[in-house]
Amino acid sequence: MNERITLAPTARTTIRRLPELANRDRSMLHEIVDEAYVCHIAFVAGDDTHCIPTAHWRKDDYLYIHGSNGSRMIKALAAGTQAAVGMTLVDGLVLAKSAFSHSMNYRSAVVYGVFEPVQDNADKLAALDTFMDKIAKGRKHEARPGNDKEINATSVLRIALTEAAVKVSASLPSDKEEDLGLPVWAGVLPLKTTRGIPIHFNCNGNVPVPDYVKNWAD
Amino acid sequence: MNERITLAPTARTTIRRLPELANRDRSMLHEIVDEAYVCHIAFVAGDDTHCIPTAHWRKDDYLYIHGSNGSRMIKALAAGTQAAVGMTLVDGLVLAKSAFSHSMNYRSAVVYGVFEPVQDNADKLAALDTFMDKIAKGRKHEARPGNDKEINATSVLRIALTEAAVKVSASLPSDKEEDLGLPVWAGVLPLKTTRGIPIHFNCNGNVPVPDYVKNWAD
Repeated sequence: MNERITLAPTARTTIRRLPELANRDRSMLHEIVDEAYVCHIAFVAGDDTHCIPTAHWRKDDYLYIHGSNGSRMIKALAAGTQAAVGMTLVDGLVLAKSAFSHSMNYRSAVVYGVFEPVQDNADKLAALDTFMDKIAKGRKHEARPGNDKEINATSVLRIALTEAAVKVSASLPSDKEEDLGLPVWAGVLPLKTTRGIPIHFNCNGNVPVPDYVKNWAD
Repeated sequence: MNERITLAPTARTTIRRLPELANRDRSMLHEIVDEAYVCHIAFVAGDDTHCIPTAHWRKDDYLYIHGSNGSRMIKALAAGTQAAVGMTLVDGLVLAKSAFSHSMNYRSAVVYGVFEPVQDNADKLAALDTFMDKIAKGRKHEARPGNDKEINATSVLRIALTEAAVKVSASLPSDKEEDLGLPVWAGVLPLKTTRGIPIHFNCNGNVPVPDYVKNWAD
């Protein structure tokens, strides 16, 4: 493995609880960032520690967020406040024969560092196009693009995906030897995010239905 | 509305971005805490700001977590570190006719305060039974209960659900007047958490399959 595709652990990203679940594969970090629509951002402002949810997306080795210039979080992060960005995908409940051996299957990432503002309007628009691609591939060519007023009122920030703690649990129940014979059901109850039937709104006349809408529902 | 069922805003829970989405109904906070399996906990330890995912559950007006006594997060929180607990349920992508009017439907809660350890072993076990009820109703009567060694090695902490910022967005696309006639599809692409087919493991012989397993899959 070379530096390009692995994550070197730092003091705060060394996983101490269940270290066997630590994952240093950069592609797993990318998968989690890409699959999650929302992250939670921890930061301190004044006397308060916050944990604010926001939509995010990825471009190369950066996680991006956006928001109004006036947002408390945007202002704090743009000023260089230390941040931690957490994302977790819950994949299932793991039911063991003993109460204390129950667990969950999940894929989680916590990214540490400092956000930097994307300064140039062209760079902001390019980043937001990548966000639109995550939401609906190709829609950036259909929706009315942002105008100068909209772009100027919006901040785009990014944080490097270089210092991250990634943890993956994808296992069957693990009971102690002495519990294996108990007449208790054991197994996994899977959970996943699925897509429902699209709701059409204000699409009278000749508005074509894009493929990403036709193919949305599971 | 009386004090029992509403949340009084404080400086840090007053929602400044899109204040019309603020929700002060305590039952909505309970719904979000109950439906989410995992929260993210922001806290500061030494020089670092963390955002650590963990499973949680609710009993009355408290959110509970548990972990190994040795866990860095458990130790920091048990010592009275200020915390913020974030949970978000993503309900859909809202596609408007203009790029900057896109949004998401979601229900989010951020709980502020300090955790307190549940000291007594009987109280810890009662709290963990409530957790088991969230995972699988009735299973607390089937799984092998925790023994003294397991209980003593585990910390249970709780935080009051009194200071919280709750935000709910459940809307159709909202475009500016001048964009309404654009020939662009608009609507909502719903997302939800669904349940997959249970995986049976080490259940040979006469192990009965509980109703919560039979009825699990959507």
